[in-house]
Amino acid sequence: MPQKNAAFLIIGNEILSGRTTDKNLASLTHLLKEKGIPLKEVRIVRDTESAIVHAVNALREKFDYVFTSGGIGPTHDDITSACIAKAFQQPLIEHEQAVKILQHFYLERQLEFTPERRRMSRAPQKATIITSDFPGAPAFYIENVFVLAGVPAIFSLMAKAACQLLPQQTITHSQSIKVLCGESQFSEMLRTTATKFSSVEIGSYPRDENGVYSCHVVFSSTDTKALDTAKNYFTQTLTQQKLPYE
Amino acid sequence: MPQKNAAFLIIGNEILSGRTTDKNLASLTHLLKEKGIPLKEVRIVRDTESAIVHAVNALREKFDYVFTSGGIGPTHDDITSACIAKAFQQPLIEHEQAVKILQHFYLERQLEFTPERRRMSRAPQKATIITSDFPGAPAFYIENVFVLAGVPAIFSLMAKAACQLLPQQTITHSQSIKVLCGESQFSEMLRTTATKFSSVEIGSYPRDENGVYSCHVVFSSTDTKALDTAKNYFTQTLTQQKLPYE
Repeated sequence: MPQKNAAFLIIGNEILSGRTTDKNLASLTHLLKEKGIPLKEVRIVRDTESAIVHAVNALREKFDYVFTSGGIGPTHDDITSACIAKAFQQPLIEHEQAVKILQHFYLERQLEFTPERRRMSRAPQKATIITSDFPGAPAFYIENVFVLAGVPAIFSLMAKAACQLLPQQTITHSQSIKVLCGESQFSEMLRTTATKFSSVEIGSYPRDENGVYSCHVVFSSTDTKALDTAKNYFTQTLTQQKLPYE
Repeated sequence: MPQKNAAFLIIGNEILSGRTTDKNLASLTHLLKEKGIPLKEVRIVRDTESAIVHAVNALREKFDYVFTSGGIGPTHDDITSACIAKAFQQPLIEHEQAVKILQHFYLERQLEFTPERRRMSRAPQKATIITSDFPGAPAFYIENVFVLAGVPAIFSLMAKAACQLLPQQTITHSQSIKVLCGESQFSEMLRTTATKFSSVEIGSYPRDENGVYSCHVVFSSTDTKALDTAKNYFTQTLTQQKLPYE
């Protein structure tokens, strides 16, 4: 059975403007790694209907699971739920279970359940509510799209709950070495290694620290034996060529 | 004349796997802001030909300028130049000016100009080399696509040189206030403000710091007068409702 994959859609002008640095990608990749689900694409789009609808439809068709972050609060720029409904050509309704969750949340805090707060219960008609450890706003999923909040502390709780709904897959393991020279000194050897061990994905990530070049070479595979063999093969060729690594 | 916009394509498995945190988005947004060019979309894709070609073609059609980062080094996973050539249906050639830049770089450092190092001179036939303050690898552009390195220290030098080639536009200014309560308490007032001042973009970004809710409300516009008026209008309604802000 082919491995299922995922994409992540970050909705938010504040990330695109550079005012806010996204923190949700890091927590999502961590959760997906534990599930053995590779993240294949990330898109960051503006809070406009056309941008969100287009991206959701493109990603849900192409990838097995799609996660979105942002835009499910009560303010005028929170348009994600409406856009998801539009993408799925479904009416946007007040979801009964979501209303109950929010009612309970505000009642417990002795706060009025205003129409503005009630807005957060809206979801596409066929959506299913995701109950998470965050009680203040309901997340939901519809088909393969998981719609989560943007605030990092809340996103991570919702993403955790969403990932629990997904099947466990074989985990991809990684090993890395740091080669202490510029990558053009070993790129040919690395190419040979990559060709020889096709079940192992090999990435080379150079660093320039004040003109001192080094390179992280990362070996990744679901097959730990092949991973070890490929890494050992490469380090042996480094040793033969007297190129230092750690 | 409508304002020209930009998109950013980050090429790199290391970002998608969560091993590396992207730093290039922050430096690009800073440079684009100074030029008055709004960044409309970011995509992060894997180092595979189909993913890169598809994303480049989608973005270059949709946006005025496209910047890419990553994959122009000498290793087997550096396939960006070849993919850009494919996206533009052009042959990939050793660019004469790039060869000269690299030859000079290695000669100065008394290093051999090996075939592996020469690989970095490859670009689509009609590409133009971008000379930047980084001498070790040439960036290039073709039509509206600017192809830059992934290493942050190098990317920022190349992005600076690329942005110098673009026309100056009217700068978007921003002002923000921090409202010291949950956003559902003022979302209606904010909606009224947003409707009243349509030339001002208003974003609301909630924070949850250990259960203490606050919210950054950001006003952005190229029209500084409208910006001031919208912000003042909103803060007056906050004061009337006795909602604290700073």
